[in-house]
Amino acid sequence: MAEGDDGRIRPGEVAAPMPADFDAQLYFIGRIRSPYSRREDCPRRGDAASGPDFRLEINPRWQPALAGLAVGDRVQVLYWMHLSRRDLLLQTPQMDGVTHGTFALRSPVRPNPIASTVVPLLAIEGGTLTVRGLDCVDGTPILDIKPASGRFQGEHG
Amino acid sequence: MAEGDDGRIRPGEVAAPMPADFDAQLYFIGRIRSPYSRREDCPRRGDAASGPDFRLEINPRWQPALAGLAVGDRVQVLYWMHLSRRDLLLQTPQMDGVTHGTFALRSPVRPNPIASTVVPLLAIEGGTLTVRGLDCVDGTPILDIKPASGRFQGEHG
Repeated sequence: MAEGDDGRIRPGEVAAPMPADFDAQLYFIGRIRSPYSRREDCPRRGDAASGPDFRLEINPRWQPALAGLAVGDRVQVLYWMHLSRRDLLLQTPQMDGVTHGTFALRSPVRPNPIASTVVPLLAIEGGTLTVRGLDCVDGTPILDIKPASGRFQGEHG
Repeated sequence: MAEGDDGRIRPGEVAAPMPADFDAQLYFIGRIRSPYSRREDCPRRGDAASGPDFRLEINPRWQPALAGLAVGDRVQVLYWMHLSRRDLLLQTPQMDGVTHGTFALRSPVRPNPIASTVVPLLAIEGGTLTVRGLDCVDGTPILDIKPASGRFQGEHG
């Protein structure tokens, strides 16, 4: 079970009072098909070398935006860790029992539970991409896919 | 001016009909103080070696979550490119005039305009972090800060 996700507070953990309002909104562009149907089955970290395949099923609306991706590319996948609580300021991961600030950890528990992973693109079939190296549960929402590096590096607000 | 952000469609560009509803919501955890006050002043890509300093001003609510970060760390900053349009499926970047799918570009114009950049952490003063290597406009909202690598790598949904 991932840190803090069962609603219990471990020793040293501190929850924040949450803001009354949100500030921006997201579209889910698709879902990740994973061999892990329960969160407790997920590994701590994906394995791009010997781990299982994951399928990124992109919603029909956004499929035209895949044009130009090619097998062999390394892509950055941003996804939404929809099962994670969002209110912990300090966390005590089970793996070592040491308390850290949320922003000093890559835990899924964070105010905006956005995961970022770079994976190899193994296949493209219509609106479905096959990748390896993720660790998320089946049905996890996808937020974005972009080349890990590319012609257009700039990302400015 | 960033691609597509002036509301005009360039040759080859295609806009999507947008979904009626959003799927999830974000909290802004702070703002980026940048030397670039206008978007047209921003470089195409940040320069961590010789570029200017940026200050990440974290909201008081979330400042306790910085505990454990240290000067010299490399941190991944996720921020919200709040000035970008979100509806382009195909884009024709001005830099080369070639049309690509949005997910084959790192353009700021995308359904969820989340930027991800890894930068060196140069200073920590209270709730303000100083970094170098960003390229965004002053006032850009921050979504997350996490170690670029760390004790707790796992990010599962």
